[in-house]
Amino acid sequence: MGFNVMVGQSGGPTAVINASLAGIFQNAIRRGADHVYGMRNGIQGFLEERLADMSEVIRSNLDFEILKRTPSSFLGSCRYRLPQPQEDEAPFRRIFDLLKKYDIQAFFYIGGNDSMDTIDKLSRYGAWIGSPIRFIGVPKTIDNDLELTDHTPGYGSAAKYIGVVMKEIILDARVYGTPYVTLVEIMGRNAGWLTAAAALSVGDDCDGVDMICLPEIPFHVDRFIDKVAAMQKHNQSVVVAVSEGVKLEDGRYVCELSDDVRSKDAFGHTNLTGTARYLSNCIASSLKTKTRAIELSTLQRCAGHVTSRTDITEAYQVGGAAVKAAMEGFTGKMVAIQRISDDPYQVTTMLVDTADVANKEKKVPLDWIDENRTGMLQPYLRYARPLIQAELPPIYIDGLVQHIHL
Amino acid sequence: MGFNVMVGQSGGPTAVINASLAGIFQNAIRRGADHVYGMRNGIQGFLEERLADMSEVIRSNLDFEILKRTPSSFLGSCRYRLPQPQEDEAPFRRIFDLLKKYDIQAFFYIGGNDSMDTIDKLSRYGAWIGSPIRFIGVPKTIDNDLELTDHTPGYGSAAKYIGVVMKEIILDARVYGTPYVTLVEIMGRNAGWLTAAAALSVGDDCDGVDMICLPEIPFHVDRFIDKVAAMQKHNQSVVVAVSEGVKLEDGRYVCELSDDVRSKDAFGHTNLTGTARYLSNCIASSLKTKTRAIELSTLQRCAGHVTSRTDITEAYQVGGAAVKAAMEGFTGKMVAIQRISDDPYQVTTMLVDTADVANKEKKVPLDWIDENRTGMLQPYLRYARPLIQAELPPIYIDGLVQHIHL
Repeated sequence: MGFNVMVGQSGGPTAVINASLAGIFQNAIRRGADHVYGMRNGIQGFLEERLADMSEVIRSNLDFEILKRTPSSFLGSCRYRLPQPQEDEAPFRRIFDLLKKYDIQAFFYIGGNDSMDTIDKLSRYGAWIGSPIRFIGVPKTIDNDLELTDHTPGYGSAAKYIGVVMKEIILDARVYGTPYVTLVEIMGRNAGWLTAAAALSVGDDCDGVDMICLPEIPFHVDRFIDKVAAMQKHNQSVVVAVSEGVKLEDGRYVCELSDDVRSKDAFGHTNLTGTARYLSNCIASSLKTKTRAIELSTLQRCAGHVTSRTDITEAYQVGGAAVKAAMEGFTGKMVAIQRISDDPYQVTTMLVDTADVANKEKKVPLDWIDENRTGMLQPYLRYARPLIQAELPPIYIDGLVQHIHL
Repeated sequence: MGFNVMVGQSGGPTAVINASLAGIFQNAIRRGADHVYGMRNGIQGFLEERLADMSEVIRSNLDFEILKRTPSSFLGSCRYRLPQPQEDEAPFRRIFDLLKKYDIQAFFYIGGNDSMDTIDKLSRYGAWIGSPIRFIGVPKTIDNDLELTDHTPGYGSAAKYIGVVMKEIILDARVYGTPYVTLVEIMGRNAGWLTAAAALSVGDDCDGVDMICLPEIPFHVDRFIDKVAAMQKHNQSVVVAVSEGVKLEDGRYVCELSDDVRSKDAFGHTNLTGTARYLSNCIASSLKTKTRAIELSTLQRCAGHVTSRTDITEAYQVGGAAVKAAMEGFTGKMVAIQRISDDPYQVTTMLVDTADVANKEKKVPLDWIDENRTGMLQPYLRYARPLIQAELPPIYIDGLVQHIHL
């Protein structure tokens, strides 16, 4: 007997979010799904009944291969937050009406902690009205801040990108052999996972970054400048990885000390930017050195041209595992990755309650940070190195990486 | 009979400058050179007698392959300008003393128009004192602004990088389907070649950037905002490639309108940065839209992980051609690339006088820019597409791209 599936993508793009979409699509079709519908722009587009039938847009094995390699969200994304049903039931009624209209048995949402809140609310509402529809969350975020999963798909590729470009930035920064401080601003509002990835740059051929400033550690501008000054006595070129989310003791973001235009998004998050630039200006006016601020900006989340094959494979697998979970009758669950061993690296998937993941943030363990609080210790490297291993070569056409879009 | 060679790198890094070094090194050794000495930090380090014997630091074929793939300048670089010998002869005496000490027959300098000034001065001084040493320039710059050569090694890889990441930025920017203006700041002080490369992003799978603002075209902030507003009526997401060097009618750089710390380098060039940020703030305060400023910063010149095989091959070839030219007795020449045909793409090398290249800048032809003055026409695409073709796969070790350093 056939069945139909609805799938959406939410939150910020990653380089491998479409590999999870591919995993859901292919696994559902193989298990006999008649239709796999994609919500355009997540739950927000779904409420407006903007849908795409995946079989009509992914028509060949080549399309499928390119989908896995296309960064950003193929179906489009949103930052829409469902209300509590007891406060406003209207969107829930609308959603369940549409799910009935399209005869949907399973609903998948690929996203981060905000998206798991959506799955949690929908599965609870479904249970309350006695709906048999299964709601399963598929983890995705470069931030790696989801609870109960060893790591999140998207993190490995973003971490690999940061490791690769940090090595290049370090080479570039010391080319003149003159005093030079480079501040590289990395995403991660409250959790420093991505900034920590700068530590991966160390190796036979690279001394690595000189300092890593995580949002988990309160930031002191003056002490920071002193540390940089002390480092420049030994190294002309100092390269610092700094999280966009570093905060002062009083809780203000460092970037709030600068005077740029800022705004908040639908979830009430401040748009953070300008931390590296602010600190670079502080250093330039305190020390006799050239400085440069580099924001990795959106490239760190959408660099489909540098992905971890481990990450893409796992992103695909959690998509397939989500379909399996729905077929087995689970709902209100997120597929999590469980690490069996570091070396050899082995993982499996398991199911966790979305309620235990929604709206929570997993921080970098403080005991993985060195005593100076500006570097990562071996446990972090043991954790992160396996996630960046191996490559899935991009498909180059006419000199550029090929993508697929709706 | 053996001979000895001196080679240096100068100016800003590129992803393929070390392929030219590899070409000089290998060709000189094959032709019987006893020693190929590298100047550390260009002519500045040479004056301090800081040298590396290339055979001692590149010891295997693997080292050699990795050298070709290592971005930034392996030998280090400088921004040192030789005086006129009639004003200050001391550095010339010092240089020729050192060349005598190391029994050098041929001197190669890999760089841009400032570096060709160095070759020009040294060859003239050499002729004046009756020295038999040959001085040959090897072109290198991501800016592609050297006269008398079809293009410069370094440009193809930087252009490819820009094409690749621009496609990713475009995908990322439209993911929410909400009003969004992305300004991508690209290097190029006076010549817009690199910014023009954003035009390469257009293809089957990408509509390309919406606007390209070159330094060749005077910039009007208000008209720019009006154009963006008009574009947003049709496209929610507008992506603009803007040169760091765009100037107002009165000659001031747009970035000078912002209030960031600035300084000048040894050649008296203002450090340009903040153009995209300034314009993004202007748009955010004039139009109801989210904006984002992205500076490609040093990544566009040091992205060894995305290089054009065409570019790397040519960078290697011009190095070899420089050695051949010196052996044939030429001096005061730069190796230029001459295009034989666009399709099939064929090039050869020729020699031009460094005096005709030094301190000059080749701009983007105005008739390659569209009538709105914000897009590139077919002649540019025919010119640039061959330069980004094919890839030299980076060598990944333990998840990251491997480099070699002194």
